[in-house]
Amino acid sequence: MRFELITKDPKTRARRGRLHTSRGVIETPIFMPVGTQATVKSMTPNQLRDLTVEILLCNSYHLFLRPGHETVARLGGLHRFMGWDRPILTDSGGFQVFSLSSLRDISEDGVRFQSHLDGSTHFLGPELAVDIQMALGSDIMMILDDCLAYPATVFDADRSMKRSLAWAERCRKHWDMRGQPNALFGIVQGSIYADLRRESADRLVAMDFPGYAIGGLAVGEPKPLMYEIIESVEPYLPEEKPRYLMGVGTPSDLVEAVARGVDMFDCVMPTRHARNGWLFTRDGHIVIKNSKYKEDPEPVDSTCACPVCKTYSRAYLRHLFIANEILSSVLNTIHNLYFYLDTIRRIRQFIEFHRFEEILAETRRMGAH
Amino acid sequence: MRFELITKDPKTRARRGRLHTSRGVIETPIFMPVGTQATVKSMTPNQLRDLTVEILLCNSYHLFLRPGHETVARLGGLHRFMGWDRPILTDSGGFQVFSLSSLRDISEDGVRFQSHLDGSTHFLGPELAVDIQMALGSDIMMILDDCLAYPATVFDADRSMKRSLAWAERCRKHWDMRGQPNALFGIVQGSIYADLRRESADRLVAMDFPGYAIGGLAVGEPKPLMYEIIESVEPYLPEEKPRYLMGVGTPSDLVEAVARGVDMFDCVMPTRHARNGWLFTRDGHIVIKNSKYKEDPEPVDSTCACPVCKTYSRAYLRHLFIANEILSSVLNTIHNLYFYLDTIRRIRQFIEFHRFEEILAETRRMGAH
Repeated sequence: MRFELITKDPKTRARRGRLHTSRGVIETPIFMPVGTQATVKSMTPNQLRDLTVEILLCNSYHLFLRPGHETVARLGGLHRFMGWDRPILTDSGGFQVFSLSSLRDISEDGVRFQSHLDGSTHFLGPELAVDIQMALGSDIMMILDDCLAYPATVFDADRSMKRSLAWAERCRKHWDMRGQPNALFGIVQGSIYADLRRESADRLVAMDFPGYAIGGLAVGEPKPLMYEIIESVEPYLPEEKPRYLMGVGTPSDLVEAVARGVDMFDCVMPTRHARNGWLFTRDGHIVIKNSKYKEDPEPVDSTCACPVCKTYSRAYLRHLFIANEILSSVLNTIHNLYFYLDTIRRIRQFIEFHRFEEILAETRRMGAH
Repeated sequence: MRFELITKDPKTRARRGRLHTSRGVIETPIFMPVGTQATVKSMTPNQLRDLTVEILLCNSYHLFLRPGHETVARLGGLHRFMGWDRPILTDSGGFQVFSLSSLRDISEDGVRFQSHLDGSTHFLGPELAVDIQMALGSDIMMILDDCLAYPATVFDADRSMKRSLAWAERCRKHWDMRGQPNALFGIVQGSIYADLRRESADRLVAMDFPGYAIGGLAVGEPKPLMYEIIESVEPYLPEEKPRYLMGVGTPSDLVEAVARGVDMFDCVMPTRHARNGWLFTRDGHIVIKNSKYKEDPEPVDSTCACPVCKTYSRAYLRHLFIANEILSSVLNTIHNLYFYLDTIRRIRQFIEFHRFEEILAETRRMGAH
């Protein structure tokens, strides 16, 4: 994998780049829809391609538990399994182990945990985290990190950050030993403490990863603090490597984070909100079940060029939602993903024209959304 | 609407025809997927077009209750509402009133019933049944009929059949009065009693409808009896009008009924079974959740040319089903609808070559499926 920096915005830290992978080129900044269980919920791969999705994120934790990474490997890998031939980024499973499972025991070697599905006991360590992602055939793998809740004391944050560094080193070595297949990203931790974040970044950069993620954000801290942390970490990340902000965020988060030098994003928000009938528009969101849409012949967003807005009324989308129809999730997901991908396309264009400050100002005028 | 009889099989009563409607031509025999609530569950209209669906069935009862036929009319009619520009056949609502709602009172004027959604009380009579379907903008409307459960005494069946005839007459008159928009089909009733069926057919034909349906079958009676009834009714239906067997059936039912002169079918089976993980194949069905498919790399049906069989393994489809993913319903529905549409395409080809007996023999060799 090779990262090409195309241009930088003169007034912000926004960057326009290109990730060259063996499965094709990814334009950055990029938004990666989440395909937790080897499917972006309700979408066929064809629908994702029509939406111009360039790369997906899949969750190792879920696929490790079901159907099992070895099963996926025997079936030819994740791309073949789910019928998706473009790049896939996988997380390490760490975040879900800490957030979904009953945690049994954490040690320097890794985490023993109980499956949220059936209570069965499993162990996840740094080497296995790499092996799982390799079995899946991931194009961009993530190191196993220790994921801390917010708020955390500086003591806990320090210990957790150092454990993550130790695991990062072991992941890095195991990745070397296995021949450096595809890419492996380090993850900066350190909670809200700038000095810990800096130490984490410095020591990860010394290990030399193909890319760097900022983890442990969007876990409940206030937005301004999240932006502040990104801003404080960015100077310690090498310019020539991609930066990935994990699990973030709203459309305005994307703009704010790009302004602070972030290149890659993933978030369940567009897809999960879609299934709950929360639809993004340029003027904020609408809640489609609202009775005021019962006979509304207008599209969700009259400025939107997505196939849903071109064809269907709010009244029809409300009907599908109220009637609990599967097509409600499908059409809402198409609209919300289109909105995110269109936002990221606009972000790219504004950077290319060296006018990123305009979209930033527009976003701030709109207020957080 | 005009029906064109293209050719007849020399050894059976199978017919190959063409229905000319204002929204395009429908090749017969035809299978109509069911779009109960203004959506074929889990399918986008584009996916239906890709599957070569020529006509859909929608349910007046459901749309009358939610969102309301007048709402649909104000939004430009059902085609615009659901983004489907090919023909739509609507039922009259009678069947669902009898099967889904709490029936309060049936009289010569119609039925007073309680909504299965919220218990609200409504009245459906023959004139309103036509008005609802006209408000929806249906291409082929059905008369309101009295739907009888199986088994029924000859006394009940006679009374019910005569009530249906009276309603048919009122529907016919109301349709005339409203200018004969699109088409209106009569429905032959009479339970399992051949003389009642004949009386029903004769009197409907005397009213001169653009097409005739056979109703009140597939309600629990044995298969051979169902085939016998179709066989007994067919000679009394005019050759130059299409015949529609309502709510039927399995793939082998389609073949058996075509052999007895039927041109049109609708059934929830392919779509409902899909959501339950029951997939049709040329060798019978498979139940996709079965653990034997856990690592099965083969497609559902290796002889099937559908996009699901071309791309996905049984193992992936099993994973989606077990993981309760929406995409499971989507892909299973694509496969099952393809199977039905492919069956009906093969039926047409065998009739064209005057070799329908071959597909009939093949079907009987396979046993009921």
